[in-house]
Amino acid sequence: MRTIKLTIEYDGTNYAGWQVQPNGLAIQQVMEEALARILGAPTRLHSSGRTDAGVHARGMVAAFGTDCEIPVRAFCEGLNALLPPDIAVREAVEVPSGFHPRFDAVGKHYRYTIHNGKRRSPLSRLYAWHLRRALDVAAMREAAAYFVGEHDFAAFRTAGCAARTTVRRIDAVDVTAEGELVRIDVKGSGFLRNMVRIMVGTLVGIGEGKHPPEVVAAVLAGAGSVSAGATAPPHGLCLMEVYY
Amino acid sequence: MRTIKLTIEYDGTNYAGWQVQPNGLAIQQVMEEALARILGAPTRLHSSGRTDAGVHARGMVAAFGTDCEIPVRAFCEGLNALLPPDIAVREAVEVPSGFHPRFDAVGKHYRYTIHNGKRRSPLSRLYAWHLRRALDVAAMREAAAYFVGEHDFAAFRTAGCAARTTVRRIDAVDVTAEGELVRIDVKGSGFLRNMVRIMVGTLVGIGEGKHPPEVVAAVLAGAGSVSAGATAPPHGLCLMEVYY
Repeated sequence: MRTIKLTIEYDGTNYAGWQVQPNGLAIQQVMEEALARILGAPTRLHSSGRTDAGVHARGMVAAFGTDCEIPVRAFCEGLNALLPPDIAVREAVEVPSGFHPRFDAVGKHYRYTIHNGKRRSPLSRLYAWHLRRALDVAAMREAAAYFVGEHDFAAFRTAGCAARTTVRRIDAVDVTAEGELVRIDVKGSGFLRNMVRIMVGTLVGIGEGKHPPEVVAAVLAGAGSVSAGATAPPHGLCLMEVYY
Repeated sequence: MRTIKLTIEYDGTNYAGWQVQPNGLAIQQVMEEALARILGAPTRLHSSGRTDAGVHARGMVAAFGTDCEIPVRAFCEGLNALLPPDIAVREAVEVPSGFHPRFDAVGKHYRYTIHNGKRRSPLSRLYAWHLRRALDVAAMREAAAYFVGEHDFAAFRTAGCAARTTVRRIDAVDVTAEGELVRIDVKGSGFLRNMVRIMVGTLVGIGEGKHPPEVVAAVLAGAGSVSAGATAPPHGLCLMEVYY
């Protein structure tokens, strides 16, 4: 059986997230329906992980097994012909059997985009979190540095997170400003549920002067969680790349 | 009577263009309805010009006269509270009476965005023209230079264009590539109907190797028009700024 690895881009605005679930349409479901039409049989797509409702992706990775012998390129073209405009396969490659998008992943890159401006921006509204109050980007950058390294991220996960261990390694958290946009690029070995959005919410609290940058070090050292309501909304988040 | 100048940003995806017209909802109409609710009377909004159906704007300029004495800032906040998410006022300022957004404009900046990649991109689909064939950006840049200066742009307008003279001055046409995106920034004193989109369509024909860069000089010198169908689609175009 062949194993085909797909790199998928989507605009998550109109979906209930990646994973198939009872409420709302999932991207996985749309993908699996397109796959079934091409392969002529129901086919399970395994992914590198979930994304929440409203989160976008430039490089979600998923894979499936098939005995179909069409050229790998045809999966890409065929799926894109069937998929709606807000979902597309950017790449399809054949990989050794046994490849698993989730268990073989060694890291991920997420980008969070903030529109920091007095007035709302129609052209950024679907892909950036609008914050009116001017952010102290230097303070956010100082705080971001505390995330880098191996830490217990127990305070940076949502209540429903079922991960067995909460230790994760973060390789980089880069905060860059360009005009009214502030981008936070997070790279790490793995992420707990809502971890990036809670990290971003915390950095924003620091950028707004509610906490000093050192609060990140204190919370990582076990000083409870930062104030409630610190989870950034989903539409600013984008899964950029999964590393293998 | 006070004159209020508005700078407006909009996502043109769901509109039939700026100008009020019989088919489909116009941005001007949505703006005038919101204005009427704030001012309590029908109010005509004069703009710096039209944008076609599907074209976006970061800096459309429009103005209206009013005897209402509320602070100018309140027009901005009030309108934004009434306007839909895809239209917003970025700035409202009081200007000397007699100001006219169209007749007083001395120039405009348009940006055209192309997504040049083998696979379609869901996250660029609403704001960039997708072209699969690799563009020769250097050839496009060479051709773009011929547009700069004062020329007769009769070959670069749509059939319905009613302008009395077809001579316009172009100050800059910058072609830049970043990843799979190619941006064409056009600045000039004024533009004929569809002129930017026909300029872009011509540059793309050159980037695809259909014509040499010199074809721009020849057409501007009066050698008829470039091949038909060279009008770039509206969704890649954005009115960035109007100069006064």
